[in-house]
Amino acid sequence: MDYNFFMEEAYKEALKAYKIDEVPIGCVIVYNNEIIARAYNMRNIEKNTLKHAEIIAIDKACKVLKDWRLEGCSIFVTVEPCAMCSGAILQSRIDKVIFGAKNTKFGCCGSILNIVNNDSFNHKVEVIEGILEEKCSNLMKDFFKNIRRKDKLNGGL
Amino acid sequence: MDYNFFMEEAYKEALKAYKIDEVPIGCVIVYNNEIIARAYNMRNIEKNTLKHAEIIAIDKACKVLKDWRLEGCSIFVTVEPCAMCSGAILQSRIDKVIFGAKNTKFGCCGSILNIVNNDSFNHKVEVIEGILEEKCSNLMKDFFKNIRRKDKLNGGL
Repeated sequence: MDYNFFMEEAYKEALKAYKIDEVPIGCVIVYNNEIIARAYNMRNIEKNTLKHAEIIAIDKACKVLKDWRLEGCSIFVTVEPCAMCSGAILQSRIDKVIFGAKNTKFGCCGSILNIVNNDSFNHKVEVIEGILEEKCSNLMKDFFKNIRRKDKLNGGL
Repeated sequence: MDYNFFMEEAYKEALKAYKIDEVPIGCVIVYNNEIIARAYNMRNIEKNTLKHAEIIAIDKACKVLKDWRLEGCSIFVTVEPCAMCSGAILQSRIDKVIFGAKNTKFGCCGSILNIVNNDSFNHKVEVIEGILEEKCSNLMKDFFKNIRRKDKLNGGL
């Protein structure tokens, strides 16, 4: 499987979020070497906790495969999934999670907790990290730098 | 807040799941002492990983409050939430999770992991457990007993 190719696709999704001022995280779900679902974070615009990229993509993938089990699937995410998304990945029995940048505040595929690959649960998801790491991380840094700049400008008005 | 009253309402939801052969878990979300969302597990019937009672209810509550933040809300669940649902509760910034029976296999409000009340995250959810515990637990036991009986009958055909 061409990890860089699919992460580039996830990155394109993250760019869509960036352009509408959402935290720029994107993802794709791959089955039999084909993308069956793609999504980007829309939490603010949708005013809905559940609209993280991974949750939207898992919802789509279940509809495509007509199954709550996503066995045989891999999920590519630009940033390490949070607790909710890691839990959804575990629940869906996805085989593999591949992420770009670590999330040192909320990441639950190894950074803060490891929900997806934990001896306590009945399923384990393989984790591969650091694919296009710098690119995915820079997009996040740019986003938060702009947020701070806008806040500063607004504060100065 | 009358914990028993609201847990009875969550239990009524669990019964709806029981009647359609879904794992019998139900929940309600309460805001200003009123139920603003109610749901029951529909994972099998909907063929969708995300259709746990808590996720469906959080989706509804976000729509009611028109906000991804469910601050001021309490969620009543008949069984301790899994990793995905605990993560969603944390992400939504719900104030309090009240559950009936422990989930010793998948529970992430203290049993296997504690996702909702963890010093590593920027939000903490208060956890209250054991409300109508026996009743909620017995419904689960009955459900799995029936599943085994049906499996046995089918196996004998």
